[in-house]
Amino acid sequence: MSVPAPFPARLAARVARFGPLCVGIDPSPKLLAQCGLPDDAGGLYDFGRRVLEAARWELSIVKPQMAYFERHGSAGLAALERLLADCRREGVLVLLDGKRGDIDATAEAYADAFSRPGSPLACDAWTAHAWLGFGALARGVDASLVAGSGVFVVVRSSNPEGNPTQSARLDDGRRVAEALADEIAEANARHAAIGGGIGAVLGATHDESGALAERMPGAWLLAPGVGAQGATFPDVKRRFGTAAARVLPNVSRGILSRGATPAAIAEALGQLRGEAAILG
Amino acid sequence: MSVPAPFPARLAARVARFGPLCVGIDPSPKLLAQCGLPDDAGGLYDFGRRVLEAARWELSIVKPQMAYFERHGSAGLAALERLLADCRREGVLVLLDGKRGDIDATAEAYADAFSRPGSPLACDAWTAHAWLGFGALARGVDASLVAGSGVFVVVRSSNPEGNPTQSARLDDGRRVAEALADEIAEANARHAAIGGGIGAVLGATHDESGALAERMPGAWLLAPGVGAQGATFPDVKRRFGTAAARVLPNVSRGILSRGATPAAIAEALGQLRGEAAILG
Repeated sequence: MSVPAPFPARLAARVARFGPLCVGIDPSPKLLAQCGLPDDAGGLYDFGRRVLEAARWELSIVKPQMAYFERHGSAGLAALERLLADCRREGVLVLLDGKRGDIDATAEAYADAFSRPGSPLACDAWTAHAWLGFGALARGVDASLVAGSGVFVVVRSSNPEGNPTQSARLDDGRRVAEALADEIAEANARHAAIGGGIGAVLGATHDESGALAERMPGAWLLAPGVGAQGATFPDVKRRFGTAAARVLPNVSRGILSRGATPAAIAEALGQLRGEAAILG
Repeated sequence: MSVPAPFPARLAARVARFGPLCVGIDPSPKLLAQCGLPDDAGGLYDFGRRVLEAARWELSIVKPQMAYFERHGSAGLAALERLLADCRREGVLVLLDGKRGDIDATAEAYADAFSRPGSPLACDAWTAHAWLGFGALARGVDASLVAGSGVFVVVRSSNPEGNPTQSARLDDGRRVAEALADEIAEANARHAAIGGGIGAVLGATHDESGALAERMPGAWLLAPGVGAQGATFPDVKRRFGTAAARVLPNVSRGILSRGATPAAIAEALGQLRGEAAILG
């Protein structure tokens, strides 16, 4: 099997063609109902196909939310595997959003699940949390990067309930999110030969996301919170400043803002893509 | 469908019969090889069966690590579903260890996956992380508790890399883990009619785990770090003090300490159960 280009290079090439928008595939019971689709494994797959076909596969990266596939157990994951295979064939990158995190061999098992070529859930990148410490994830992060994949670590989540923990102070005076950003920057520097590969999730809803972005030079930044959670594309531009060109604004529920037919989704995606262009 | 007794009551009844040991089902490539089992979905299932049969199903609760099942995608989850069905039939409680965490509707989707009666991955309790804030999990936690399930939130992980974040200071002076313990206690108090249902993961490796346990009166406490990570059962007894009777000591790799044959696993489990009895 040929070794693919590292994730940061693959992502940059896609973003140059199709823009920075990261489209969430969140087949919740509510969204499935809006689409007139059944709440079963077939409905999950059809929802994903509807979004991808509405975009004519001209998306840089999509982000399936694993919780909605796990609701249907192994059948749900089989639907996800079909979507992953479709995206691979069409060249759309996939960031699996499961916010996984554990220690040592278990972190490595997640990397194996999501990054090993030929693994049923192999994708381009996965989201991780660092509640157990960034260092605990190291074996998993390293394994994914070496395999040519990316990992996006949640540094500053878009929701207000994350503020106390993420803004708490370490003994050295840094905030938890700042220290995590520094650890990501150091690890990316160690993997500079492949362009890093560790991205960060930074809520578009926080003014400090720009300063956190500056602590991680070159890292890709996934910015949730656009649309339903209240941030606008100009907010993203203003908050991220010089880092705005590295931002992947994430929109999930917003893709149904015009309606749930393929034509309505295509229209919403076209508008979102146009608005996201100010970040480039 | 009849409503089951709430999770805390079910767990207490099992622990009274079979003791507090929580047996990890961690079919990593290494453990599968030790057992002479193939690294595929069949091997995952056979590993779980070997442990459960070696114990003659006389276990209070087992804890499958989801990462090892996800390595094999939908086929791995189908193997897990078979194990869950076996445990349900035999009365062994299952705590699914995936350390899930997200916000609002997504947190609720995890609860739906793991706690809705009839869901393919329905189990007795699941592990969660609160990196996005305990409040963000509320919809999921509440949904699981109302369904009669439990949720174990990682408050203080056993590994050293978690120390800086979990011990960071909030503006009000409390440490992050302390504030989280207080939020769990408050939520359990709101659900007092069903005996609470929110447990905590507190590493057996930390002296402060006892003080954290006291902040969560009545909560079940999962204590990893016994065995491979260096804590002994007397350490657990000493560190948790009066809370020791609420502790579920977790052993995973240690069940293969005498060898990987059914007889060797039975012997190791018998010894571990005997050692764990000092906590009661």
